[in-house]
Amino acid sequence: MISVIIVGSGNVAQNLFHALQQTVGVNIKQVLGRNKTHLQFVKNDKLVNTDFTKIPTADIYILAISDDAIGIVAEHFKNKEGLVVHTSGATPVEVLSSLKRPGIFYPLQTFTKGKIVSFNNIPICIEANDDKDVKLLYKLGNALSKTVVEIDSDQRKTLHVAAVFVNNFTNYLYTLGAEICEEHQIDFNLLKPLITETAAKLEDLSPLQAQTGPAKRGDQKTLHNHLQIIKDKHQRELYTLLSNAIKEKHGKEL
Amino acid sequence: MISVIIVGSGNVAQNLFHALQQTVGVNIKQVLGRNKTHLQFVKNDKLVNTDFTKIPTADIYILAISDDAIGIVAEHFKNKEGLVVHTSGATPVEVLSSLKRPGIFYPLQTFTKGKIVSFNNIPICIEANDDKDVKLLYKLGNALSKTVVEIDSDQRKTLHVAAVFVNNFTNYLYTLGAEICEEHQIDFNLLKPLITETAAKLEDLSPLQAQTGPAKRGDQKTLHNHLQIIKDKHQRELYTLLSNAIKEKHGKEL
Repeated sequence: MISVIIVGSGNVAQNLFHALQQTVGVNIKQVLGRNKTHLQFVKNDKLVNTDFTKIPTADIYILAISDDAIGIVAEHFKNKEGLVVHTSGATPVEVLSSLKRPGIFYPLQTFTKGKIVSFNNIPICIEANDDKDVKLLYKLGNALSKTVVEIDSDQRKTLHVAAVFVNNFTNYLYTLGAEICEEHQIDFNLLKPLITETAAKLEDLSPLQAQTGPAKRGDQKTLHNHLQIIKDKHQRELYTLLSNAIKEKHGKEL
Repeated sequence: MISVIIVGSGNVAQNLFHALQQTVGVNIKQVLGRNKTHLQFVKNDKLVNTDFTKIPTADIYILAISDDAIGIVAEHFKNKEGLVVHTSGATPVEVLSSLKRPGIFYPLQTFTKGKIVSFNNIPICIEANDDKDVKLLYKLGNALSKTVVEIDSDQRKTLHVAAVFVNNFTNYLYTLGAEICEEHQIDFNLLKPLITETAAKLEDLSPLQAQTGPAKRGDQKTLHNHLQIIKDKHQRELYTLLSNAIKEKHGKEL
């Protein structure tokens, strides 16, 4: 049985709590946070702790908190013998260097307030200094997910950059799609099957193979017509930049 | 029974053929194309026609061909009494103005070579000049899909622009994500659950609500660190443009 203390009350903490609660071989000893009202997702009062001076012993402490807070909160775990991991994609393991056994337990997913997701499909990226700790993180990870990979802090930082492109930036393109629809009294729901299929295509094709559209075809007429329709300065700039990038990537003349 | 002739041999034509073949109340009379070898997806030889001077009578002729070809191919249908529709998002109905009964039957989806998709979830956007024809297109559309909407050529053109943002441009961001992974020996498959969830979130949230990430939070430190990692000029330019746009949209200071 792996005993775990979760630190934090945000989306990652909540999702980890729900997932680990149902995980065979894992015992959540406590959920630790400064503000009791933020810990209301923990229905069992006995598991709630707001006192950082009284943290019980556990095999693994998971700091599921914002990037900026990790270094500060880690100070409370200086004397702990257990493994202390954070869940951030962008933060190097060095931020925990004052601890005896630092590590990373980074679930590569976007977590939304109030939405509980299944961890089974979420890749978990782990890192620790010695083999025993890596083994322990594999054990915890495998109990939650079918995909656990050991990657170092540099790779994880890079993976986080790639995640920003495919998640944050993609979502921004959805936002622009929704805006364009709204401006012209078109129901954005019409685009949702297309959005789903665009993502689903990657099961069969690389994104390079899956590319379609006027820029890919070098269809100047449609590109020109589209720029006639787009009035917003930012949207035009983005349309031009992305179209040129696609043309260049697919060998069409600029 | 609606009798249909499909013109074309590309992804849209193939997908329409497969779907309409299985549709109760629809009879495919022929599939018409210049090149017999391109029409091999039609297993029944009797349905194959390569002679544009001998086109039988049908209720609806569907021109599932490239945007540039629509006007030229339409000439062959000048004397037809049936409804002649094209399937293009970007092409106005006027390109068919020499015909007796022009219309639009635009399935809003991305079609991939060799991949047959279900039409049930694909919104079909229809347009025709008179009520009788609109009714007929509704009938054909509803036989295929649960979502059929009447929209005019201007709205359809705009919808096509929005589709470019959420489909073509999004896929390009996936391409960059894959490139960044490849450059750093990271398995792109790790990002696929994130990509799926980013799209799936829209079932519960608007894209504006679903936005997350360093730019949304105004997290300058991470934005700065990411730009240290990204070496490619185009990727940097896009990263900066998109991050600034997200910051601005979500009210963070630039």
